[in-house]
Amino acid sequence: MAKNTKVSITVIRRLPKYYRYLSNLLDKGINRISSAELSRLTGFTASQIRQDLNNFGGFGQQGYGYNVEELHKAVAKILGLDREYNVVVTGAGNLGNAIANYGGFKDSGFNIVGVFSRYRDKDNTHIQNMKVRPIEELESFIKENKVDIGIITTSKENAQAVANIYVKAGIKGIWNFAPVDLVLPEDIVLETVRLSESLSTISYFLNEENNK
Amino acid sequence: MAKNTKVSITVIRRLPKYYRYLSNLLDKGINRISSAELSRLTGFTASQIRQDLNNFGGFGQQGYGYNVEELHKAVAKILGLDREYNVVVTGAGNLGNAIANYGGFKDSGFNIVGVFSRYRDKDNTHIQNMKVRPIEELESFIKENKVDIGIITTSKENAQAVANIYVKAGIKGIWNFAPVDLVLPEDIVLETVRLSESLSTISYFLNEENNK
Repeated sequence: MAKNTKVSITVIRRLPKYYRYLSNLLDKGINRISSAELSRLTGFTASQIRQDLNNFGGFGQQGYGYNVEELHKAVAKILGLDREYNVVVTGAGNLGNAIANYGGFKDSGFNIVGVFSRYRDKDNTHIQNMKVRPIEELESFIKENKVDIGIITTSKENAQAVANIYVKAGIKGIWNFAPVDLVLPEDIVLETVRLSESLSTISYFLNEENNK
Repeated sequence: MAKNTKVSITVIRRLPKYYRYLSNLLDKGINRISSAELSRLTGFTASQIRQDLNNFGGFGQQGYGYNVEELHKAVAKILGLDREYNVVVTGAGNLGNAIANYGGFKDSGFNIVGVFSRYRDKDNTHIQNMKVRPIEELESFIKENKVDIGIITTSKENAQAVANIYVKAGIKGIWNFAPVDLVLPEDIVLETVRLSESLSTISYFLNEENNK
């Protein structure tokens, strides 16, 4: 992550977990929770939870615990989940298809407004109900549709070129699935999902005995 | 990660990055690299690189650097990428489809031998060229096909039940994409990919100014 921030990235990466558990509690109609209970659920210590949430103002009350709805709303606001985002996907292979069609993102306010591909032939002009557009239209589309986030599901060879178009067109957040380290200006937020690396962590542990 | 190991998880998580860069060097026909060059490529310090690789025996030679092919082979062995794995996918939605059809896993020795779904209707009996099997056959299939790794791409509601079948049938490694914290025996290797959490890290940083 290129940006500087006063809150450590470790704390920020814990927030979505709080958010997920708070959403589950709300679904169950639970409106009040102690930091001890929240600790049992999340696996974080009660003192860590208090510290984490104090970074953003502290939402608990001594002797009462947390109001789930308020805390959920506050964490949503911190995570920027209280607004909507326009998102494009470039790379219309299996992974791009999966991402473009995953309902969970839309429910969280991430609206896929366009899917783009370099390899758009007659068999590949639609992903389910969405038109796949040629890469040549990407830059103007981003500008016209005020796109906030660009997803990259291309091959590693094409990923940097797509990222460059995203940046040129004014996108500030990039979610990259290609197995490559993108070079980007400092003010661009980059998250890279490394699927192959996650999988090889499993194979490492399955073979750990052999390495001793 | 439940397993205890002498090498820290931080080091292990860096190994796939070395492996990726070494693969790229091999593809380019580069056979020798100094730790300084490897440092420039990976962004790790030269001293960190030496320390990391020393955990597994140390492969460099003073004044020569690393032999890329040997180091690549050694890291592959450490990561368990020198053998093949039988893998099943449960959950035949968009994400399961993408995972089952992603060629990169097969190239690394992860062979998808079966795809399973609870919701197998007449429109959903095949993923491209692979048959989607009913969940009732999962346990016996795992045993008969010596399956090593089970992938979970179901809803969060069904993920634990699928994990329980995996464990009962003898699977030792689970790659989970469902947004839930699975409860598993200590000897099972679990990697959870949290797509929504990765995405909300982007939205956090895009809205960081508002939180100050």
